[in-house]
Amino acid sequence: MISRDPNVLLAEARNASRVALARMVTFVESGGPQQRSTASLAYQSPPPYVVGITGPPGAGKSTLTDRVITTALTAGALGDLTFEQIAVLCIDPSSPFTGGAILGDRIRMQDHATDEHVFIRSMATRGNLGGLSLAVPDALRVLGAAGFPLALVETVGVGQMEVDIASAADTTVVVTNPGWGDSMQANKAGLLEVADIFIINKADRAGVRETRRDLEQMLDLGADRAWRPLILETVAADGRGTEEMWKAIAEHREFQIRTGELERRRRARTGKELSRVLGIEVSRRVKNLSEGKLYDDAIDQLVRGVTDPYSAAETLLAQT
Amino acid sequence: MISRDPNVLLAEARNASRVALARMVTFVESGGPQQRSTASLAYQSPPPYVVGITGPPGAGKSTLTDRVITTALTAGALGDLTFEQIAVLCIDPSSPFTGGAILGDRIRMQDHATDEHVFIRSMATRGNLGGLSLAVPDALRVLGAAGFPLALVETVGVGQMEVDIASAADTTVVVTNPGWGDSMQANKAGLLEVADIFIINKADRAGVRETRRDLEQMLDLGADRAWRPLILETVAADGRGTEEMWKAIAEHREFQIRTGELERRRRARTGKELSRVLGIEVSRRVKNLSEGKLYDDAIDQLVRGVTDPYSAAETLLAQT
Repeated sequence: MISRDPNVLLAEARNASRVALARMVTFVESGGPQQRSTASLAYQSPPPYVVGITGPPGAGKSTLTDRVITTALTAGALGDLTFEQIAVLCIDPSSPFTGGAILGDRIRMQDHATDEHVFIRSMATRGNLGGLSLAVPDALRVLGAAGFPLALVETVGVGQMEVDIASAADTTVVVTNPGWGDSMQANKAGLLEVADIFIINKADRAGVRETRRDLEQMLDLGADRAWRPLILETVAADGRGTEEMWKAIAEHREFQIRTGELERRRRARTGKELSRVLGIEVSRRVKNLSEGKLYDDAIDQLVRGVTDPYSAAETLLAQT
Repeated sequence: MISRDPNVLLAEARNASRVALARMVTFVESGGPQQRSTASLAYQSPPPYVVGITGPPGAGKSTLTDRVITTALTAGALGDLTFEQIAVLCIDPSSPFTGGAILGDRIRMQDHATDEHVFIRSMATRGNLGGLSLAVPDALRVLGAAGFPLALVETVGVGQMEVDIASAADTTVVVTNPGWGDSMQANKAGLLEVADIFIINKADRAGVRETRRDLEQMLDLGADRAWRPLILETVAADGRGTEEMWKAIAEHREFQIRTGELERRRRARTGKELSRVLGIEVSRRVKNLSEGKLYDDAIDQLVRGVTDPYSAAETLLAQT
């Protein structure tokens, strides 16, 4: 029987047990009692280098991700970062399924579903993308702790929340198609802000030149950034351009390390993660406070008029 | 010049200064720095007996309230509770105005706007009814501390939030009209749950019998309560039925005292108030935590990988 002890699971996951690793991800995803001990353990290891891939439905992200996995495993390195296995988190707001959606994963990533060098995991939104923006960082730490130096996060959609999840990455890739304008118009500013690399996928179709021109114009109009996002063309269906894409990701990583941008980004992300955990911890404490004897005593005192709620709250909080 | 010290203001308010009283209400309404000291002071006095009056726009609540004030001041007592002055809080989600809306108040309560025995105060939602559900309990405590044994809270609307505000009362009156069904259909269950007294106002119009029958049927179908809500008819325009309404309020108050229901309700309300203040206090602390050196240190440690966000949050919270 598989253990429920995160320490045992982590040891097994490091020893290539995909079942143990999947269970750890389920723990941090569920928000249940094992969430905290699992996440807390995972944070003791460095995070993987995270590549976020986002774009509208139908842009060909899954096929492209499939190709990138092959390219990456063949190269075995991203710049000076070497690896023998890759983890992929698939976040699909339109799917109500969670870890169990293995069939879906297999269909999505046909080439690698049974590849021992690839760990593919769907994370479901359960109708609540907000919950995922909490669970994904923990899941990435779990992957790092389990020995994955590299993780891909594929997010379907270009809404602000999808973009937020994708951009909690070290390198963010936005996938478009020729004639992309319509599908991304709504959140153009948000996409421009987070994209490190634009991919024009399905580049064997008409309209590539116009799309590239549109993107360049947008970048010209946008804020000056030390890194000007690259624009690349791919045809994921036959693999064209994926090696260039992999090189671009490596180039962006190297740029970030050289300029200190990687450290700045990770620091900012760490701040967000800490604020999020603080909020969760505090809510938990208020909930606990609202259930105990101290709380009942405080209400007695309030009803008798010997204290006020501000002083009572202060007294209660001092007890936590 | 008028003081900003809540203790000075309260002494003046008790000495019949309406300006001082109005300022105290502004303090608790604003959520500013004086909010806490004012509310804290106010909670040292017992609360007034609170009658909530709610119903859809156009039901005639203001005219009815006007009449009830006259009836109440003439009687000078609600059962064994005697008083010489009445406070009225008017909460109108459709009005963007706050304390300054004196002209509006005068128009709304023509008979009593200049009556020294009546304190009328509009509280504005500023588009956020949630904020009012926080400020109204504090304002009621201020009224109690200033020497008002009785307060009316008039809320326009039958949405859940309006009903929540109105039902944070000792006796809740729901005002309807003949043919009321349409305007209240959406929140029938919510209204049924909170109403202690139903008023069919404008009872000189056709359809009174049908409306009463509808209400009785609803009550028959509803959960069994020790107190079956009374159904009364009024014509606020000429004052018909307002004395019976006043007697019904007194009857409900007497019932609640006799059965211990008043204490239970106030205890439940006190619990809600304490939870609310706990939430506010905790949010304030998290905000303070996110701005200090301890927070920056925690991020340093997280970036260096020597702690995890859960332990860091615990350490930070221990410092508050």
